[in-house]
Amino acid sequence: MMRENYDEYKQMIDEHLLDFMPNINNMSNPLYESMKYSLTAGGKRLRPVLLLASCEFAGGDSKDALTFACAMEYIQTYSLIHDDLPAMDNDDFRRGVPTNHKIYGAGIATLAGDGLLNTAFEIMYKNMLLYFDSQLELKKRINAAYVIAKGAGVGGMIAGQVSDVESESKEPSNEMLEYIHVNKTAALIVAAVKAGLYIGGADDAMMEKMTIYAENLGLAYQVADDILDVRGNAEEMGKGTGEDEKNAKLTYVSLCGMEAAEKKLHELTENAVNAIADYYDNAEFFRDLVLKLESRTK
Amino acid sequence: MMRENYDEYKQMIDEHLLDFMPNINNMSNPLYESMKYSLTAGGKRLRPVLLLASCEFAGGDSKDALTFACAMEYIQTYSLIHDDLPAMDNDDFRRGVPTNHKIYGAGIATLAGDGLLNTAFEIMYKNMLLYFDSQLELKKRINAAYVIAKGAGVGGMIAGQVSDVESESKEPSNEMLEYIHVNKTAALIVAAVKAGLYIGGADDAMMEKMTIYAENLGLAYQVADDILDVRGNAEEMGKGTGEDEKNAKLTYVSLCGMEAAEKKLHELTENAVNAIADYYDNAEFFRDLVLKLESRTK
Repeated sequence: MMRENYDEYKQMIDEHLLDFMPNINNMSNPLYESMKYSLTAGGKRLRPVLLLASCEFAGGDSKDALTFACAMEYIQTYSLIHDDLPAMDNDDFRRGVPTNHKIYGAGIATLAGDGLLNTAFEIMYKNMLLYFDSQLELKKRINAAYVIAKGAGVGGMIAGQVSDVESESKEPSNEMLEYIHVNKTAALIVAAVKAGLYIGGADDAMMEKMTIYAENLGLAYQVADDILDVRGNAEEMGKGTGEDEKNAKLTYVSLCGMEAAEKKLHELTENAVNAIADYYDNAEFFRDLVLKLESRTK
Repeated sequence: MMRENYDEYKQMIDEHLLDFMPNINNMSNPLYESMKYSLTAGGKRLRPVLLLASCEFAGGDSKDALTFACAMEYIQTYSLIHDDLPAMDNDDFRRGVPTNHKIYGAGIATLAGDGLLNTAFEIMYKNMLLYFDSQLELKKRINAAYVIAKGAGVGGMIAGQVSDVESESKEPSNEMLEYIHVNKTAALIVAAVKAGLYIGGADDAMMEKMTIYAENLGLAYQVADDILDVRGNAEEMGKGTGEDEKNAKLTYVSLCGMEAAEKKLHELTENAVNAIADYYDNAEFFRDLVLKLESRTK
């Protein structure tokens, strides 16, 4: 049984996100404070919400997926901390407050990012220890953790970040922009959906259809972000407040123009909606999510 | 059956370390090149060698532990790349060659470190997929991966790195130095030994004794490093060539003097040897390793 709205899932994440911080007694204080600072600096929690909702969509209990959802947000938060570093985008603000390194220095901020990434994997392994008596439950979790690791890794998000850094010194192209969006933004969104489906026990047909949904949602999210950035009401998307993707050097709007961007967003939205049409009312949560994304750009 | 010497294990690592790099076709070139550069820039491979040897010591086949051993070296390599960054120790050379960021820039070096850490976990999950038909083998690998994640994490190596950064602005003390050594150096060495034992199927008694061995080995390794650094024949330890721990701002020798350092090293060596005394000749590899560490400082 799925919850009724986004905020119910988001509340689960906000309430439990810090529960998974390991061994805080043995930790040096600045590390803990720095990690906590960025984890609690706001954010829409899109990826963990998608993970919880996907788990329930597949018939699972979202409580069983909470560790993995929080791990997802730890990964998202680490990527933002490292993205903002002086050596990368050198941003002073994120989500309306100073970036991690502006408060704790670039050295601690680098280690806090490392710590969040490592912690994400650590807590997923720890969670698996609870399921040692069930081979089926272990398999679900290994599949989920693997898909998260791949989405976050050098064949996913990190590849996108590298291309984003590299794009500054290259001739902009549609192919490059698509590569950055697919990897930097969509890969982790797709991973969140698939991980939730694995834990919830989805069948192959649902896995396939929801993967197409998530790929289109991920790209739609980025194009909508680019449109809102130009329209100046970016705070609706969380962009103006520094959430998720920051000002891209290369955007869909700057490359193709506003009209093409709106057309592209509509196309992606339709693809996402069509991918899950077979599920009728059961897929209302996911249909609403992508439709609202488009309507907010109007 | 254990192999005869250190170099046989090291050769396994050197030969297969790059086999585990994922999805290179989809990866942007500078990321792959940067990761490969640091992975192949030399190094004694102490941690992965310990993992393979521990697996065989427990009766396992080291080939079954190769993925985890390489993951260990990916983690060690990422920690060195990030340690060297301008925001951290700002080192120009490591293992006798320019540091990663001197070649690829601090942005790519940060992402290459992130990529190596993520890849370590990704390949351990991928390895688990091969054992889906055996609950016992899955448990061994989850235990091994969890102990690696804890050792590398915010209750282990990363906590040590933060304390090392912090120690520059604090009054030096024995307690602080011990905390840094235990976490920054010993934690990952202990994790390597325990992970190998898990995969090899060690019993509780062996796990307990080898943990004591590894804790003392890890600290002995750091104290020997401090002594060799002063004696100027650091290259024997790999220190002069930039391997493993770099010039610590705070060392055992600088804090307690050479005589106390030698006494401490002897004590740690004895503790390590005594911990595994019950295993007589079977433990020759591990006994030799720690005894050679001490004899090289003479």
